[in-house]
Amino acid sequence: MKTTRKQTLGVCYYPEHWPQERWTDDARMMAEAGITHVRIGEFAWSRLEPDPGRTDFEWLDRAFETLHANGLNVVLGTPTATPPKWLVDSMPDMLAVGRDGKTRGFGSRRHYCFSHQGYRRECARIVTLLAKRYGRHPALAAWQTDNEYGCHDTVESYSAAALSGFRDWLGQKYQSPDALNRAWGNVFWSMEYRSFEEVELPNLAVTEVNPAHAMDFQRYSSDQVIAFNRIQTEIIREHSPEIPIAHNFMGRFVAFDHYDVSADLDIASWDAYPIGFLDRDTKDEDNKQRYLGVGDPDNQALHHDLYRACGQVRNGEADGRWWVMEQQPGPVNWAPWNPAPSPGAVRLWAWEAFAAGAEVVSYFRWRQPSFAQEQMHEALLLPDGEPNEAYSVCKQVAGELDAIGAVADPARSDVALVFDYESAWAWAIQPQGRDFDYFDLVLRFYRALRQHGVSVDVVPPSGEAVTGRKLVIVPGLFSAPGEVLEALADSDAAILLGPRTGSKNDDFRIAEGLPPGPFRKLIDMKIRRVESLPPFVDVPLAEGGRFNGWREFVMPGEGVKAVRMSKDGYAAHLTNGRIHYLAGRPDEETAKAVVGELLRQAGVEALDLHRDIRVRDNGGVRYVFNYGPDSVDVSGIAGEGEILFGETVLAPRAVLAFRRR
Amino acid sequence: MKTTRKQTLGVCYYPEHWPQERWTDDARMMAEAGITHVRIGEFAWSRLEPDPGRTDFEWLDRAFETLHANGLNVVLGTPTATPPKWLVDSMPDMLAVGRDGKTRGFGSRRHYCFSHQGYRRECARIVTLLAKRYGRHPALAAWQTDNEYGCHDTVESYSAAALSGFRDWLGQKYQSPDALNRAWGNVFWSMEYRSFEEVELPNLAVTEVNPAHAMDFQRYSSDQVIAFNRIQTEIIREHSPEIPIAHNFMGRFVAFDHYDVSADLDIASWDAYPIGFLDRDTKDEDNKQRYLGVGDPDNQALHHDLYRACGQVRNGEADGRWWVMEQQPGPVNWAPWNPAPSPGAVRLWAWEAFAAGAEVVSYFRWRQPSFAQEQMHEALLLPDGEPNEAYSVCKQVAGELDAIGAVADPARSDVALVFDYESAWAWAIQPQGRDFDYFDLVLRFYRALRQHGVSVDVVPPSGEAVTGRKLVIVPGLFSAPGEVLEALADSDAAILLGPRTGSKNDDFRIAEGLPPGPFRKLIDMKIRRVESLPPFVDVPLAEGGRFNGWREFVMPGEGVKAVRMSKDGYAAHLTNGRIHYLAGRPDEETAKAVVGELLRQAGVEALDLHRDIRVRDNGGVRYVFNYGPDSVDVSGIAGEGEILFGETVLAPRAVLAFRRR
Amino acid sequence: MKTTRKQTLGVCYYPEHWPQERWTDDARMMAEAGITHVRIGEFAWSRLEPDPGRTDFEWLDRAFETLHANGLNVVLGTPTATPPKWLVDSMPDMLAVGRDGKTRGFGSRRHYCFSHQGYRRECARIVTLLAKRYGRHPALAAWQTDNEYGCHDTVESYSAAALSGFRDWLGQKYQSPDALNRAWGNVFWSMEYRSFEEVELPNLAVTEVNPAHAMDFQRYSSDQVIAFNRIQTEIIREHSPEIPIAHNFMGRFVAFDHYDVSADLDIASWDAYPIGFLDRDTKDEDNKQRYLGVGDPDNQALHHDLYRACGQVRNGEADGRWWVMEQQPGPVNWAPWNPAPSPGAVRLWAWEAFAAGAEVVSYFRWRQPSFAQEQMHEALLLPDGEPNEAYSVCKQVAGELDAIGAVADPARSDVALVFDYESAWAWAIQPQGRDFDYFDLVLRFYRALRQHGVSVDVVPPSGEAVTGRKLVIVPGLFSAPGEVLEALADSDAAILLGPRTGSKNDDFRIAEGLPPGPFRKLIDMKIRRVESLPPFVDVPLAEGGRFNGWREFVMPGEGVKAVRMSKDGYAAHLTNGRIHYLAGRPDEETAKAVVGELLRQAGVEALDLHRDIRVRDNGGVRYVFNYGPDSVDVSGIAGEGEILFGETVLAPRAVLAFRRR
Repeated sequence: MKTTRKQTLGVCYYPEHWPQERWTDDARMMAEAGITHVRIGEFAWSRLEPDPGRTDFEWLDRAFETLHANGLNVVLGTPTATPPKWLVDSMPDMLAVGRDGKTRGFGSRRHYCFSHQGYRRECARIVTLLAKRYGRHPALAAWQTDNEYGCHDTVESYSAAALSGFRDWLGQKYQSPDALNRAWGNVFWSMEYRSFEEVELPNLAVTEVNPAHAMDFQRYSSDQVIAFNRIQTEIIREHSPEIPIAHNFMGRFVAFDHYDVSADLDIASWDAYPIGFLDRDTKDEDNKQRYLGVGDPDNQALHHDLYRACGQVRNGEADGRWWVMEQQPGPVNWAPWNPAPSPGAVRLWAWEAFAAGAEVVSYFRWRQPSFAQEQMHEALLLPDGEPNEAYSVCKQVAGELDAIGAVADPARSDVALVFDYESAWAWAIQPQGRDFDYFDLVLRFYRALRQHGVSVDVVPPSGEAVTGRKLVIVPGLFSAPGEVLEALADSDAAILLGPRTGSKNDDFRIAEGLPPGPFRKLIDMKIRRVESLPPFVDVPLAEGGRFNGWREFVMPGEGVKAVRMSKDGYAAHLTNGRIHYLAGRPDEETAKAVVGELLRQAGVEALDLHRDIRVRDNGGVRYVFNYGPDSVDVSGIAGEGEILFGETVLAPRAVLAFRRR
Repeated sequence: MKTTRKQTLGVCYYPEHWPQERWTDDARMMAEAGITHVRIGEFAWSRLEPDPGRTDFEWLDRAFETLHANGLNVVLGTPTATPPKWLVDSMPDMLAVGRDGKTRGFGSRRHYCFSHQGYRRECARIVTLLAKRYGRHPALAAWQTDNEYGCHDTVESYSAAALSGFRDWLGQKYQSPDALNRAWGNVFWSMEYRSFEEVELPNLAVTEVNPAHAMDFQRYSSDQVIAFNRIQTEIIREHSPEIPIAHNFMGRFVAFDHYDVSADLDIASWDAYPIGFLDRDTKDEDNKQRYLGVGDPDNQALHHDLYRACGQVRNGEADGRWWVMEQQPGPVNWAPWNPAPSPGAVRLWAWEAFAAGAEVVSYFRWRQPSFAQEQMHEALLLPDGEPNEAYSVCKQVAGELDAIGAVADPARSDVALVFDYESAWAWAIQPQGRDFDYFDLVLRFYRALRQHGVSVDVVPPSGEAVTGRKLVIVPGLFSAPGEVLEALADSDAAILLGPRTGSKNDDFRIAEGLPPGPFRKLIDMKIRRVESLPPFVDVPLAEGGRFNGWREFVMPGEGVKAVRMSKDGYAAHLTNGRIHYLAGRPDEETAKAVVGELLRQAGVEALDLHRDIRVRDNGGVRYVFNYGPDSVDVSGIAGEGEILFGETVLAPRAVLAFRRR
Repeated sequence: MKTTRKQTLGVCYYPEHWPQERWTDDARMMAEAGITHVRIGEFAWSRLEPDPGRTDFEWLDRAFETLHANGLNVVLGTPTATPPKWLVDSMPDMLAVGRDGKTRGFGSRRHYCFSHQGYRRECARIVTLLAKRYGRHPALAAWQTDNEYGCHDTVESYSAAALSGFRDWLGQKYQSPDALNRAWGNVFWSMEYRSFEEVELPNLAVTEVNPAHAMDFQRYSSDQVIAFNRIQTEIIREHSPEIPIAHNFMGRFVAFDHYDVSADLDIASWDAYPIGFLDRDTKDEDNKQRYLGVGDPDNQALHHDLYRACGQVRNGEADGRWWVMEQQPGPVNWAPWNPAPSPGAVRLWAWEAFAAGAEVVSYFRWRQPSFAQEQMHEALLLPDGEPNEAYSVCKQVAGELDAIGAVADPARSDVALVFDYESAWAWAIQPQGRDFDYFDLVLRFYRALRQHGVSVDVVPPSGEAVTGRKLVIVPGLFSAPGEVLEALADSDAAILLGPRTGSKNDDFRIAEGLPPGPFRKLIDMKIRRVESLPPFVDVPLAEGGRFNGWREFVMPGEGVKAVRMSKDGYAAHLTNGRIHYLAGRPDEETAKAVVGELLRQAGVEALDLHRDIRVRDNGGVRYVFNYGPDSVDVSGIAGEGEILFGETVLAPRAVLAFRRR
């Protein structure tokens, strides 16, 4: 059964940073701005337990009361991302160890190793205290476990605890060293082990380690995040059974499997910093300049869709929940450069999230601190407590939400784009060309879909997720679970595979019978060779567009023909009718053309959008966004719909919402 | 009372590198070249004390005698930058530890930790021996303590000695852990300490540490240099009371507070390597090419002015003394590339220093060694002992000095430009935009002043230093000492502040009431937002010119108006008449225009100079320099003055000197 | 006496990676492809000795038998590059330590320190077992010691074993610490030692160490490789006296002295990966694009000539032997990007090697593994066991070899180009300009010679090697052995020296009497100054062409005149008639012009070749190669010769062979 949820605004608040005399004013101003949800508590361990075993919850009690008195809902974060110094000193081996073999010390945050059993016990202790005390508080609306698992590259730890844990994990997986040796192919370079106690962590070797070794360590490390999180969710569920649990994931972060962690969550959420991401992640210099103050038009949207998928893992698609837990309200402090949002951008971001079905968009943070690491990170309030720019934007959006009665109501899309964490690990371990990046590959197809105005479901590689679609796109899928293969085989959807899809098995070996391995049941072909290419050459295609950085040489089988050829005479896009395989990494032109053809074949409605325009449907409402610096006439898109807000000549960074007929 | 001092030449000499039979020839050739000062002794510890406790001063006695016999003055360096191996082996924990946690071993130089008490005692011992033996030698003209404090990033050490010292230092500063926690804002991320013994050094944390933590460690580290140096100066003053003490500082080096060290010195000096610095420090590719063989026209001049300011700290402005202790005579060995000086450049450098009031310009070094680390560093003599190019330049300059009877006589300038070491630390700790660099910011204003032909005083942020000026420029001053503020308030000088000036308090917190904090008493305005911008965008101004990399968004108060606006409509240059605030980092055009306007407002004479021409006054003599590759007619500048040397059509890298009427 | 040897093909095979049932098919397919030599055994230690002391040779016996039964010759590799985990665990201090002080652990290959005596003993034990068992096997054609000494930067180790060994080595070399201090010039910076036990390894110092220190450590490290290899060759010679011994060296790898190791080998071989090297090593962006699928036209040829020289060290020039032990057959996995070979390239590479006198060209590897580190490295067979592209190329080349009865028969060239390992170390230790690279400097002259169609002998700096030539080119020779100097003095060859030639003595001191030091006996001149220049400036020459990155300022002596001048008026190319000195690093135009003039002077026949064409003579056969993307008419070169294969209009990447009249 699908629950319809009102869409609303939140904010991240650290009452312990400010005098208690101020709290009432803060709460009142929040309510006045239309904020309904307030996240507190994360990072506050040193205030909750100033000395070992001596707790102090009074201030937090009062914070709950103050917020509750102003009609605000509390999202309570567990403080496990910031163990206090006394705790670290009591067991210094709880600190993570970097890939370079150095202990990662106290002095900032996330100074712990996920594998450390002692720290897990300490976390269970503090979470139990919190869950018992606040788990049934009337103001409590949600929990957040820890904060941004993995931030600052903290998933992998090369500590003694991790080594011991990894050996156990391998023992359970392989049961015998010989089985491990066979799976990894350790006969190569005499890497064979005689016992699990001989296995080392995959760092500090003379040169690259066996990719199977690296892959299993990534799986192990991801599993520790899952186990660490589950300790908290189990305690919370026991003492706070009615309250949903969230975690705030990060953008473009793939070091652990977010679907798996999400299986223990009721709400997936992520922390959206469009401008910070643009500077940090975007390779396209042209986009970087054009969207400097608003962020990449597709990167954040892809994340919305990805975390919507995460939000569906536990409760199923019908009742999936997702939030933006932290939304950038102004310049941040952590990117190489930190420009201000363009006028309109902060509002656009909120609506892009709501249009993608977000239940809550929560600003980070309420008030800019005048001290410590994030003092240059803007907030809704200035350091002096007066409203800053985003405060009024918040108010405006809250009013619009009310006015249109916005509810989270994303439909199941006809188009599914598979995103898989193991594939991200695999190609990071074995890029084969320096710039081969899985996330970027997926984004190329996502962007092409967005450019055609399609609302996409980003999905995990599961049979259920790909079933019942008109079009399924599966780029670079490392290895193919049997159920996915069966679902795709049983469907009548148009399917686009490649490059690299199905090229390995689970043991990180080249797929049996050559790539695309098991997908050869869908399309009869073999990859005999791949080449990676430096940025100064590419592969022009006879039909227009080009591959860049990557292409594959194919031996087509029965009934498979090439519908695109490279100018130097190799098959580039193969199909047997329903199933397509793209034998290279498409540039923007190629991706858009191929996806356009597939949409037509699949019978999915596509739009012809201006470069800067994006469209998204939520329930019966269609949203149109202008990411560009110029006004654009979008009346062709809006058509006869009832306009909820906005103009059909869409100003820069403006939003139009209308009810579709 | 102001002492007038004859300007003269020196050289750095390592007699221990050469056979004693050669020394007399060397001394004679020095005298013949017009050299009067010879620095010896630095780095010679292993020859002064070949085994623990077994000293050998005979050779140094003889070196003194040889030089003295040839009428040369000795500058004696203490050898503490190069403790011998036996000393290091006797207490290996005296070695510094790098930010990466690795001990920085023996094998080159500066292998010691400033915090190590045992090494301090050893230094006191050797300096005492030297001071007693040579402190009243008739040839002794000056002492040099150690050599280039901080070279090779050696100010900060992350050793056990430093940790222990830092904890004590914090204890003395804050008296209680709670006071420290409050000052730093350690509630953020649960970084609160229960005792000073819990504090760690600010390296090897998971991500960035609290900027207040980093700042205090920088202050602590700077204080150790001061304390280390003071041990030597106190010993020397006891045993050699008549002889002035110098230290040779480095260029573009800010890791400790040079004003504070200078308070214990009689003479400030620095080591000038214009070509090496150009390649290493200059960001401007155009300048890098144009001035390849002569160095940036303003970078070395800025240092001359900075070290003149240092030379005034102890003895007061009237009797300040400064030298160039090491002057590049040819290609060096340590920059990424090491071009030869253009014809004329070596002479130009000497005169630029004398024009800025240098008492001694001392070449590094006498003879190019054929061995060890600096064998590719040119000298006055070739490795085979024959004169090299710079030897004859030296002779020529010595003759010219004599001919014009040159004396050090810099006047107090009407224009003061504030340079502050804490500000350099602050913005290195928190650049907020990757390329924000305090030194570069100051240089932009300095360059603009030089381009207007103004002789500038670079000054510390003290009340005295800014008093009695017509124009005071204060760019990027981290925090404002009260006396500076009072002096500026009480003056009627034109004042130019910003960007970032007054934006923090001493605890590295955003200034109370928003930036520019206490400067709001001078001009009523608040900065509500800053943005940093990548190199591919900038902020054009309506009045011409642009900001690049940095701009601020201002809320102007009473009586403050914008005289420059960005093209996108934000106030860029604000003023209330006397006080100006520049809300961004100006490009060369903007800096020159703004400074030009301020000079006019202040009633300071400005010149309209050719791009390559620079002008400097020392006493009644005006010097004109041509840094460019082409001849330039400067008769307009020389006017009716009595020409001392040079032509009014100034050849490339030539110098003109004339007596002003 | 010169032995003429048939030229033939080989392959690298890892039978332990595949089921024994497959081996017979593999052997049959090898034979069918015309392969005669099969390298096996390297890396197989964990299979040869699965537990400490428990050996298993049965599988290797069977591999020998299977290959022998198919008429194939075996090249047996010792497995010492991959000690098994149990061995490492038995003495963990056998692991090498990196320059950064970190132990380089197990998990890939080459995890050992050459200095470790315990590991040397273990290697002697396993090699003895192999030599006794297979040393007289009728199929055995050659031995290969270890694999690619030094790969992954493993020559230098900073371990306790290396420190102890280095101190002993210094003791033997210098006999007294004072002698070492004098030789190194340790008086500089008080680096003097009182005993050899005070000397440290040259890593982790505060800044650069004494270059003499670094140089001796490089010599020491090279000597350990030689000693390590010699242990194996002595054992093999005892138990397998009839069988020649090879080692497979790497391309562009200079960390140890290959001539010295070759003195213990009968066959020098190297591993040729033209495309991988192009991407990794080439600085010329234009070449990188033009030759993307075929590799630099001169880089691999230079290596052929270098390893031919290595092959002559033990047996003398007349009976020198060299192979390509590993030849790239398709995309590799280890370069930043890994493009596919252009059509024709794989065949061209084989013939370029045979034309240079290679006896065997052996493909790496037989079958692409589906597992472990090199699964993306192409082979003659696909992972599924079917032939890949290069298999048929192999067959074709084998047929052509038979058809023309190809034998290795390189003539002694009239032109010698000196290549010296110590010089490579010296300029890596002291580049003085960031991009000064010895290998690149030699390649510039080599390329110029190849562009004139000359078959060159690359030679060590020995008297014998430079005797009897018409032209000898000696670029950048660090220090000059007396015998070379005498041989050059006694010859009547034209000689081209410089830049940097003779600029140091063996102790890494500037040469007595200034550079070019002892070469001043050949040409009367002194270098008084050098300058290195950044890439954005260069030194145009009045006669055309330019120096880039490096030039020297010369004081010419009696009878020496400048035949080239820089446009700014300095002598650039000096000569006294027979001897020439080039005072800068020539660009391609300059190198070609100077070398052309020297060839004319020396009376060596030169051709005027198209940019993409290269020519090589082996015995009476001349080979012409087209490295370019277009067909080129080479009938002018082929002239009246009897064509063995190929067309005179040479297709891209095609080869023409004809018998010279």
